[in-house]
Amino acid sequence: MLISSVQNPRVKAAARLRERSGRNDQGRIIIDGVREIGRALDAGLEVVEVYVFRELCTDEPHERLLTSVERAGVEQVEVARQVMEKLAFGNRVEGIVAVAKPPKKELVDWKPAGDALVAVVEGAEKPGNLGAILRTADAAGVSAVIVADGGTDLYNPNAIRASLGAIFTVPTFSTTSAAVLDWLRKEKFRIFGARVDGSVEYTEVDFAGRTAIALGSEAHGLSAEWHAPEVNPIRVPLVGSVDSLNLSATAAVLFYEALRQRGQPSSHALRGNPTPAAPRP
Amino acid sequence: MLISSVQNPRVKAAARLRERSGRNDQGRIIIDGVREIGRALDAGLEVVEVYVFRELCTDEPHERLLTSVERAGVEQVEVARQVMEKLAFGNRVEGIVAVAKPPKKELVDWKPAGDALVAVVEGAEKPGNLGAILRTADAAGVSAVIVADGGTDLYNPNAIRASLGAIFTVPTFSTTSAAVLDWLRKEKFRIFGARVDGSVEYTEVDFAGRTAIALGSEAHGLSAEWHAPEVNPIRVPLVGSVDSLNLSATAAVLFYEALRQRGQPSSHALRGNPTPAAPRP
Repeated sequence: MLISSVQNPRVKAAARLRERSGRNDQGRIIIDGVREIGRALDAGLEVVEVYVFRELCTDEPHERLLTSVERAGVEQVEVARQVMEKLAFGNRVEGIVAVAKPPKKELVDWKPAGDALVAVVEGAEKPGNLGAILRTADAAGVSAVIVADGGTDLYNPNAIRASLGAIFTVPTFSTTSAAVLDWLRKEKFRIFGARVDGSVEYTEVDFAGRTAIALGSEAHGLSAEWHAPEVNPIRVPLVGSVDSLNLSATAAVLFYEALRQRGQPSSHALRGNPTPAAPRP
Repeated sequence: MLISSVQNPRVKAAARLRERSGRNDQGRIIIDGVREIGRALDAGLEVVEVYVFRELCTDEPHERLLTSVERAGVEQVEVARQVMEKLAFGNRVEGIVAVAKPPKKELVDWKPAGDALVAVVEGAEKPGNLGAILRTADAAGVSAVIVADGGTDLYNPNAIRASLGAIFTVPTFSTTSAAVLDWLRKEKFRIFGARVDGSVEYTEVDFAGRTAIALGSEAHGLSAEWHAPEVNPIRVPLVGSVDSLNLSATAAVLFYEALRQRGQPSSHALRGNPTPAAPRP
């Protein structure tokens, strides 16, 4: 069966997953991209169905992915070009999108390693920024990313895309700042908060052991809750004329300084199975 | 006089500066944003005219900027809302745009400090990425950014915007990879090239003294020219499942590691006058 109408109810339901309200209503998410869908499958995400436009699925990465899809017993729905264009992200039609159930993960159920390095992103507004931070967190061996009081939801398709699928390989949680702080205190994390007015440069602190690095929104920085006494304010120096760094640049600098100091990532036992590096597109 | 027609020839000419062909034809660039225009003026750029939509120019940052504009003897053209919407970038109408002559700067005329830290960005495709790199370069005290074999031009309005105006405060040059390499050799720079297959981790090299850090395009990395023997291939480790870092994240990690090692930015004598930090918008 080939669906060729953009008015098909299944297609309309799937397309609605691009909006937050659709994801909330249906309890599902939509994933674009060969790499991203592959990482979701590898991470054991429950993929419900994939929509396939055959004409764009003839190269080797697509064929490998479709083999994995079949092996996982996921339903394949063939669609015409116009349907794929409705389902896929902007001009990035890659011939396949997947619908999946978002991982149900609660921070309180997660057991961090003794030397876990956790990133907290508060009030993230731009999905692309959040995705970029997830990608860098994965690359730098961050144990988990916690989105606190997010203005964007974790499974925004653009966040998934910008993460290159790292959103499925790095444990991620979404909760309130108050809940994160409680949890960090209980789990005995040393907490660092990135602030433009931080009193100590980030290179002067010790990122060893259980460590949390909190980042605020680009527009407002960390909220007052993160000015608590146990949150050590650190600063990435700005030696030129601009008065702030891009949020994802700040994250990259801090995560990699932590990795440099620590020498290696935290124990990965609880991070899920790393997938082999995919070929560049 | 108030221009209210989007068909006004001056307005049409200015709007064409959003396109590369318009910039090439007219030898001018267009600058959005209060901060960005302020930095251009501070850097001594020849601003030809500013278009002003009064209704959005009543707050203090706008008033300060208009005072600088007046002091610099720049012509102010008042326009109606629909004209400003045609001239300004997308939904970021800030009430003022400027037309300026791009700085005429040739790499061969630039005299770097003895300990200059130079960034080379080869084949940059996305203006936003290039702008983000310029912003980080400014923040980390990089002495100059050289765009080599650029797929995007330096003065793309989105690059200016993403740089927050750092494009005017950090010396920037645009040329070919061959010319950059020649110049770096002649000026006795130690050259490092960021490569995913680099043999040495970036934390193991010494960024002291005259140093150049070369970054390739996100899709293709550095071209073969940068595989020359005097280019030391360095790697930012990827310890998770993604197989590459975002280009601007790579830049942030490398620039800040250089700053960390060097302890302070290179002599700023030739960087132009740093402007005081502007208030957040």
